[in-house]
Amino acid sequence: MRIAIDAMGGDHAPKEIVLGAMKALHTFDDLSITLIGNEQQIKQFSQPHERLSIIHTDEVILGTDEPVRAVRRKKQSSMVLMAKEVAEGRADACVSAGNTGALMAAGLFVVGRIEGIERPALAPTLPTMDGRGVLMLDLGANVDAKPEHLVQYAIMGAVYTEKVRGIKRPRVGLLNIGTEEKKGNELVKQTYQLLQQTELNFVGNVESRDLLNGVSDVVVTDGFTGNMVLKAIEGTALSVFSMLKETLTSSLKNKLAASVLKGDLVKLRDKMDYTEYGGAGLFGLKAPVVKAHGSSNANALFNAVRQAREMVKQNVSQTIMEEVRGQEMKEGS
Amino acid sequence: MRIAIDAMGGDHAPKEIVLGAMKALHTFDDLSITLIGNEQQIKQFSQPHERLSIIHTDEVILGTDEPVRAVRRKKQSSMVLMAKEVAEGRADACVSAGNTGALMAAGLFVVGRIEGIERPALAPTLPTMDGRGVLMLDLGANVDAKPEHLVQYAIMGAVYTEKVRGIKRPRVGLLNIGTEEKKGNELVKQTYQLLQQTELNFVGNVESRDLLNGVSDVVVTDGFTGNMVLKAIEGTALSVFSMLKETLTSSLKNKLAASVLKGDLVKLRDKMDYTEYGGAGLFGLKAPVVKAHGSSNANALFNAVRQAREMVKQNVSQTIMEEVRGQEMKEGS
Repeated sequence: MRIAIDAMGGDHAPKEIVLGAMKALHTFDDLSITLIGNEQQIKQFSQPHERLSIIHTDEVILGTDEPVRAVRRKKQSSMVLMAKEVAEGRADACVSAGNTGALMAAGLFVVGRIEGIERPALAPTLPTMDGRGVLMLDLGANVDAKPEHLVQYAIMGAVYTEKVRGIKRPRVGLLNIGTEEKKGNELVKQTYQLLQQTELNFVGNVESRDLLNGVSDVVVTDGFTGNMVLKAIEGTALSVFSMLKETLTSSLKNKLAASVLKGDLVKLRDKMDYTEYGGAGLFGLKAPVVKAHGSSNANALFNAVRQAREMVKQNVSQTIMEEVRGQEMKEGS
Repeated sequence: MRIAIDAMGGDHAPKEIVLGAMKALHTFDDLSITLIGNEQQIKQFSQPHERLSIIHTDEVILGTDEPVRAVRRKKQSSMVLMAKEVAEGRADACVSAGNTGALMAAGLFVVGRIEGIERPALAPTLPTMDGRGVLMLDLGANVDAKPEHLVQYAIMGAVYTEKVRGIKRPRVGLLNIGTEEKKGNELVKQTYQLLQQTELNFVGNVESRDLLNGVSDVVVTDGFTGNMVLKAIEGTALSVFSMLKETLTSSLKNKLAASVLKGDLVKLRDKMDYTEYGGAGLFGLKAPVVKAHGSSNANALFNAVRQAREMVKQNVSQTIMEEVRGQEMKEGS
């Protein structure tokens, strides 16, 4: 199996990207990697390896670039070349920590949608208190979604969760402002009815305040709401930890107490660190495309590669295609 | 000035509600209070006072009641009688810690909308890191909002913030998935254009992750998204504090260190406690209706009464009416 990696995407590229890729090469014997980016810089952080290839390019898509335009115009960028490796069959999956919008555009225009999937979805796994994590989608690929899209998200999320995370009959929830069936706006009310008619293990509405409590394995939402909720969770966790840090360093007595707690507090912070769960999958494309967090270090990138490898091994894209086709036939019957 | 209070609403009613009301009576000489609920129970926690009246009723709207039906059928409930005190001119404002949906229905059907306001909005103040707080609306009164509704929310939020919180030309933000003008779904893109044409101090898009950083004084959003984001913030803060508590009590050494930090950690938690900012105003009604948090203790209830009193003193409802009329005339010209 071969995975193509955008060596130039992310806040700590290329160093941490290359180090993460090398770790993956050393960990998985069945894995070949193609790194795309500035060859000279890549070589600073890698050793020659029989399963490592490098494709040189000087062009890079920046975080500030307008996504669709960047993908259309920067045809020699590390991200577009990475997607081409997949589209033209030279790689089975790809990973980038670069511009999220551009990666979604590259996935859509270069890798291509699975036939029958109307909208691909961005699907990260959020940490939960019980350590299992919850797969949430869509987190921002589509801002104006329809009920049918949310049903496809549910199918894709369930396939991934069953195949990659090994959870049988994963519980699928619908993100809503209350748990009662009649709650919500028109979009979720209609989606609720449709989800009830599928063969998924639909557990009903899930409130955003319960997301971290592990009330479902998969939760579906439109990209606008999902993105808002994800950023609210991130922002709040960051704010609380930052105020906590301020408190712990505000006096000598607090600093002494904090030094006793330090190890356990770091463990607590790590529990909230979703890079441990890998990157965010872009579901509904012909091959796995994984978005690693922009601030990825080598370990986060390694986890994203491991995730992409598992998606290839478990035939996630193929299974999604079959499930969506099955759903269509059922609806047509 | 007279404020009517639903003595039976909230998790700790009637005790904490009555104690909070008594504190308000003793604090504000210009205030008369009417408590509505079970007279015998109310008298257990109150002393006779020349500015205190009690209206007895045995009927109560429960947290589990379907809101609209409850308001229509339970005509003798403490909440409906409270709203009637306002509607029939015997009180200037009202406060309840009961069923949020029912209070919104009572506000709409009994107190009544300001002419020209299409949708009332629920508007709590969230705590921010800088201690100023941010007024957010709508937090769930309307799940399918239109751009024009969001513009009215902005006007109402700005009036309240200027009048009650004393912030001149309050910064008004639009909750969105990115700060760039072109971001978001159709609703926010259209709202952005409309807000630019008002005379408000519109500061553009605000991301949910920055809400607690005090980037604006008012932030507008549709009720569905707002409710989701609010609950995500609450849920995350609770989860982090609960994990923190677990860490601090997980060993003898941690317990000792925690005992040193205790006072400062309580201060930290209180900083995140939005009941300090009062309740959530229901804006757009003919008179101030304030929703105190369901878990309100006496102090939270007191703060909600103080807020309602300030809204009456500052003529918030009247000013909203004038501003909305002004906006309509501008649009019509």
